[in-house]
Amino acid sequence: MSAGGTNIIFYDIPSTLPQNAWSPNTWKTRYALNYMGLAYKTVWVEHHQVEALSKGLGAAPTGTRPNGSPLYTLPLIHDLSTGAVVADSSKIALYLDATYPNAGASGRRLIPPGSRALHLAFEAAAHPLLAPLYQYGLPATVAHLRPASTAYFERTRAEKWGVALADMAPRGAADAVEWQRVKDGFGTLDAWIQEGGVYLMGETPCYADLWIAGFVQWIKLVLPERWEDMKLWHGGRWATLLASLEPYATV
Amino acid sequence: MSAGGTNIIFYDIPSTLPQNAWSPNTWKTRYALNYMGLAYKTVWVEHHQVEALSKGLGAAPTGTRPNGSPLYTLPLIHDLSTGAVVADSSKIALYLDATYPNAGASGRRLIPPGSRALHLAFEAAAHPLLAPLYQYGLPATVAHLRPASTAYFERTRAEKWGVALADMAPRGAADAVEWQRVKDGFGTLDAWIQEGGVYLMGETPCYADLWIAGFVQWIKLVLPERWEDMKLWHGGRWATLLASLEPYATV
Repeated sequence: MSAGGTNIIFYDIPSTLPQNAWSPNTWKTRYALNYMGLAYKTVWVEHHQVEALSKGLGAAPTGTRPNGSPLYTLPLIHDLSTGAVVADSSKIALYLDATYPNAGASGRRLIPPGSRALHLAFEAAAHPLLAPLYQYGLPATVAHLRPASTAYFERTRAEKWGVALADMAPRGAADAVEWQRVKDGFGTLDAWIQEGGVYLMGETPCYADLWIAGFVQWIKLVLPERWEDMKLWHGGRWATLLASLEPYATV
Repeated sequence: MSAGGTNIIFYDIPSTLPQNAWSPNTWKTRYALNYMGLAYKTVWVEHHQVEALSKGLGAAPTGTRPNGSPLYTLPLIHDLSTGAVVADSSKIALYLDATYPNAGASGRRLIPPGSRALHLAFEAAAHPLLAPLYQYGLPATVAHLRPASTAYFERTRAEKWGVALADMAPRGAADAVEWQRVKDGFGTLDAWIQEGGVYLMGETPCYADLWIAGFVQWIKLVLPERWEDMKLWHGGRWATLLASLEPYATV
């Protein structure tokens, strides 16, 4: 695909789910590309192939493994128009805004002028709010990965979190406590959105809204029973958010 | 003082320092009032009198004490023009923006349109960054309080932090570690400001800049030897910040 001179390869992680896309972090980039109306092509990459792909394209590592070696993750984009290779959903958002200030027909920006620093602060504040979600989301994800990714995903996540995925999900009384922590985290996000209006910055979505929506998509896709509960939280905020962003959820 | 129809009483906490004002939280409001060019009169209130004053004016509590009872704190403003009584520096900033959208001759806003939610996220992210500062700032503050406040300050802070002020400041090897944590916290704020430009949101200060400046003032005033070190941090960022806000630092 190509339009307006853009020709972006977007590397995402596949699954056995009907819509394929599932990762909260690659969803952020998918929403961003769709929201800006940029033409792109998805290439699906299994977990164990991400490092070789990233090194082959010359992508920068996005973090460090527990053993100190560089970590390579998706999302990753390769913009054939500029030659740029960018990993990390936030860095990709900054790149897209800077490179396509008048994107396609939409003219939409991800990070409104003046809000770059506060977007960084948003991520720093929102990450710990959603930390209790991983103990639910990671074990639920593994059942939907393709066989090629499963063992790699289980091994690397167990290394990072210090517990096997099979033992990660809270049970019994701990479940009620931990799921309430997830709800409380989204409750804080809900309170912030209320200050903004429809979205965090008012009447139109910004990148921070897409960031949240990426996590909500993950819950909806891999934790469908929990999603039935979450749909009722905060006046239906999260179902409404996904519905309003549905035009930008094309896979 | 009165100008432009505003007549605001600003309740601040006194000290034995030459400029009287010292509290990082009341400094945020002082900067805000001065930045917007609003006329106000400072009334100085000793710590042990804050609760009776707040209840007398009908102010809402700003938090909860360790024993579960409501906590009343300064800053507190009483706007005689509207009758409003507002406590908590962030709530005061929102009130001033909403009530005086064309403040005095300045026309300045504290929280630019669309950035209210991200300002909340900023505070949520910045508070833990500066948490290591209190173990230095609180013990250093007590030496500068007036005798009427000293015992109350020592007792309530020890209750909150679970350690006597005299035992709070890190010593020896712990000092180097903890002071580095303070520097690292400001280092993250510096990285965010670099994304913004001169200030967090660009060429003009927003409330989040004044929020940071309140803490920098505290360090400069009660930790003058540490300030000599800090002035050299991050390319001189913090000395430059205070210098650029000096027009709004009038006590």
